[in-house]
Amino acid sequence: KGKNVIFVAGLGDIGLDTSKELLTRELKNLVILDVRENTEGLCALKEICPETKVTFIKYDVTVPLDESKKVLKKIFDKLKTVDILINGAGILDDHKIEATIAVNYTGLVNTTTAIMEFWDKRCGGPGGIICNIGSVTGFNAIYQVPVYSGSKAAVVNFTSSLAKLAGITGVTAYSVNPGITRTTLVQKFNSWLDVEPDVAELLLEHPTQSTKECAENFVKAIEKN
Amino acid sequence: KGKNVIFVAGLGDIGLDTSKELLTRELKNLVILDVRENTEGLCALKEICPETKVTFIKYDVTVPLDESKKVLKKIFDKLKTVDILINGAGILDDHKIEATIAVNYTGLVNTTTAIMEFWDKRCGGPGGIICNIGSVTGFNAIYQVPVYSGSKAAVVNFTSSLAKLAGITGVTAYSVNPGITRTTLVQKFNSWLDVEPDVAELLLEHPTQSTKECAENFVKAIEKN
Repeated sequence: KGKNVIFVAGLGDIGLDTSKELLTRELKNLVILDVRENTEGLCALKEICPETKVTFIKYDVTVPLDESKKVLKKIFDKLKTVDILINGAGILDDHKIEATIAVNYTGLVNTTTAIMEFWDKRCGGPGGIICNIGSVTGFNAIYQVPVYSGSKAAVVNFTSSLAKLAGITGVTAYSVNPGITRTTLVQKFNSWLDVEPDVAELLLEHPTQSTKECAENFVKAIEKN
Repeated sequence: KGKNVIFVAGLGDIGLDTSKELLTRELKNLVILDVRENTEGLCALKEICPETKVTFIKYDVTVPLDESKKVLKKIFDKLKTVDILINGAGILDDHKIEATIAVNYTGLVNTTTAIMEFWDKRCGGPGGIICNIGSVTGFNAIYQVPVYSGSKAAVVNFTSSLAKLAGITGVTAYSVNPGITRTTLVQKFNSWLDVEPDVAELLLEHPTQSTKECAENFVKAIEKN
């Protein structure tokens, strides 16, 4: 549909399938910012739609705000306009308290804050759309991973505020909150203080979705917003 | 009532009045961990109840987990047992993204994780009670301070998980979530990207409570848990 989309973590578990799905929608540009350098995944993406230019920039969401602004400036200089920012960086490992919070919440806030400089209508910007990947755990925690669940609750709450600020900033926002998805993350991860060593196995006893199913619904949600 | 209580940020805005109120309950020990060195406030506290020993230890909740453990070890070495941990450190300034999240969420998680080493019944510990100070903004954001509100949603969600883990760890937990309280914080603070320069004044148009009222209800909640 001729849009320019920035996708943070677009090569990740849910990310890669979502990128594939996005590329069936005839975007103009898909700029993937990811800490992973998944050359194979990237090549596969580039072949999907000849009309869409797929670009990769290495990006760690935990860098300081000014670094995020620099990365975005390069993109805006090149593309002139960006329509949608998808914030999808996330880790699931409750042994890593600082990293979980830094990636899942602080990084998302910083990337969002950074893009406002280019979008905020108070600075003459054109507005834009932010899609934040939360999780059902932001509503009902998976209590064996309290640090992760809390970080996702922060994302959900933060995004609800962004949405209310749309009248002031011109930037709309919503969160997409997947249920249990069979990513590599879910297949093995640490619970907080090992309160439940088998948490991944226990989760998989619940109804789950594949990353492809998740991606399809994800892109439907993006189209509707 | 002869209890040993650790109060993180017990000299803060809500903290100091809550400490005063706690000291009318004949504790055995009140150990205040705070980044502030409020000598005047501390002296006033020491005079309230001759039966309670009030101790102060300088503590920044943003230190690494191992530092938190060291601070707690000193306290446990001295007191042998601790009944209650109150996590009350918080800042409200949405210009400071990293600090807000580090103090309000990461710091609370680290202090909680650190005390588990001494309380967790899986390690032979006696269990304990954690009281986390959240905020109504964890449920309904003050959207002009989305970073702060999100950090409090994280606290609420995290604490709900801790409570569900009580059967495994022996440590119970609950959050106390004050409404708009006339602290020095509320009198002047920054909104995110200055979306609402007068946010503090606007808040004060709503029904508010004094820190003393907040403290009284806070201690009632502690007594009931």
